[in-house]
Amino acid sequence: MSRVIRVGGAQMGPLQKSDSREAAVSRMIKLLDQAHEEGCNLVAFPELTLTTFFPRWDMDDQDEVDRYFEEEMPNAATQPLFDRAKEYGIAFTFGYAEIARENGTRHHYNTSILVDEAGNIVGKYRKTHLPGHADFDPDRAFQHLEKKYFEVGNTGFRVWRFMDGIFGMCICNDRRWPETYRVMGLQGVEMVLLGFNTPSSNSQRQSERGDLRTFHNDISVQAGAYQNGTWVVSIAKAGVEDGHELMGGSAIVHPSGEIVAKSKTLDDELIVADCDLDECTFFKETIFDFDRHRRPEHYGLITQQTGVVRPD
Amino acid sequence: MSRVIRVGGAQMGPLQKSDSREAAVSRMIKLLDQAHEEGCNLVAFPELTLTTFFPRWDMDDQDEVDRYFEEEMPNAATQPLFDRAKEYGIAFTFGYAEIARENGTRHHYNTSILVDEAGNIVGKYRKTHLPGHADFDPDRAFQHLEKKYFEVGNTGFRVWRFMDGIFGMCICNDRRWPETYRVMGLQGVEMVLLGFNTPSSNSQRQSERGDLRTFHNDISVQAGAYQNGTWVVSIAKAGVEDGHELMGGSAIVHPSGEIVAKSKTLDDELIVADCDLDECTFFKETIFDFDRHRRPEHYGLITQQTGVVRPD
Repeated sequence: MSRVIRVGGAQMGPLQKSDSREAAVSRMIKLLDQAHEEGCNLVAFPELTLTTFFPRWDMDDQDEVDRYFEEEMPNAATQPLFDRAKEYGIAFTFGYAEIARENGTRHHYNTSILVDEAGNIVGKYRKTHLPGHADFDPDRAFQHLEKKYFEVGNTGFRVWRFMDGIFGMCICNDRRWPETYRVMGLQGVEMVLLGFNTPSSNSQRQSERGDLRTFHNDISVQAGAYQNGTWVVSIAKAGVEDGHELMGGSAIVHPSGEIVAKSKTLDDELIVADCDLDECTFFKETIFDFDRHRRPEHYGLITQQTGVVRPD
Repeated sequence: MSRVIRVGGAQMGPLQKSDSREAAVSRMIKLLDQAHEEGCNLVAFPELTLTTFFPRWDMDDQDEVDRYFEEEMPNAATQPLFDRAKEYGIAFTFGYAEIARENGTRHHYNTSILVDEAGNIVGKYRKTHLPGHADFDPDRAFQHLEKKYFEVGNTGFRVWRFMDGIFGMCICNDRRWPETYRVMGLQGVEMVLLGFNTPSSNSQRQSERGDLRTFHNDISVQAGAYQNGTWVVSIAKAGVEDGHELMGGSAIVHPSGEIVAKSKTLDDELIVADCDLDECTFFKETIFDFDRHRRPEHYGLITQQTGVVRPD
């Protein structure tokens, strides 16, 4: 049985502060239509697909913050996306800011969901590695207040049996941490779906070149793919949002680490690749056959400590 | 105080089965002379610098195997290298096959040592991730019997205060495993020294392109450097040994993941870079500030299990 999935990576251009959810969803549906025309089985949208990247502003009014969050999914604004995808029989994933009610209290997460071809939400992931900071930082060129608006996700990096394969999700900064891929790799992941919103410049080092930032993105997803023998679908929200540019560089990465499709613009753009999940096997059974080669007895510090402990 | 170290990466060309230790050491000394002329403070030689890469042959006579190993270090063959380096005040590292006597028994390791500018061995590392296989494999184009000739190292990935910085070592296949760098990163490593002997073709997939193999080498060392904010000095034994080609691609990698010096040949070749250990700091204090960003509570599988456990 063939396990080739035609994946559409649906990069999104910028969303302005004034843009409505309906405007965002309408653009998502347009990309979905294109993916359907191109015969895609699965479409991946970015992180925080429904709004601008609001952690760049310092807000203290929680009601103002909550306007960027969704209390239900699907909801009125996103239902048309679910309906269209179901009509096409296309599975999809996208990210959004989630308000969850757990044990009677409200929690805020940076979340992505996996939706099957019948429109059912079959997986949910909440971002683990929140970058940035929790308090206004006057030393930055612009703010990155994810640690203020979101709690650390409580899902961990689980995987799902999906579309005859094993799928995982992570979000944005998670992709820079090898632990992300490894935890999913240890569960046999064959395709990691991830979205990102990454500023084109470094708020703490304005001299950092844009091509270096793209390179950091690339080597992170490429090494993660290769070292776990998995496809990685890494999709940007890109372009200038309210004066702040987000990088593009959406990519579909083969288990060899090679990029097989890459976006060329900073706007709404679909990249497509036929992803054969069976191409993971060679890597998983040879150089990265974990069972034969890994040595957890020498990895203890990875889970025993959080930060750096230097030798005397 | 400046913490700039001028590093010489001393790539070695091939060593034939018939080549003596003395011939290898004489070439190492020539590279050391060159490094001295260029003002290097530290010289890094490859894995198994003293002999040909013998795991490509299947041997059953342990005496024959043991001829590729060193029972003492330094020994008569390598003493001239230690003497010359001490004369120059140059620190160095190189790899060799080690027979160790521990608790009254002989053990075989794939080992590297760190030698200070006064000629003292101050660090020893024994390879953790042995690639290949333990028994003759008729399905391979050539053998890679590291699991037959070596035991898994018992040192783990420790680091050393050295030359006013924090140094670590790993060997060859270790560089493909993100755990390697992370365990050292958690100890504040600022420079990882590693050597490799890597065949230019894949014994289990002869169609694999040479440039893909070089790419795998590159992304592994580059991601390891970037994701831990550390220099990585990655040095090959290269060229055609008894009809089998080893890849080159020795590189000195900046904490940004960028390669600042790279070898161009498959022969004895010195690459040089001024490595400022203080350039690690920005990465360690911002995007890879482990204490603020890591989430070990979600990394459990990394140390709880060795191989893959797929979901039901």
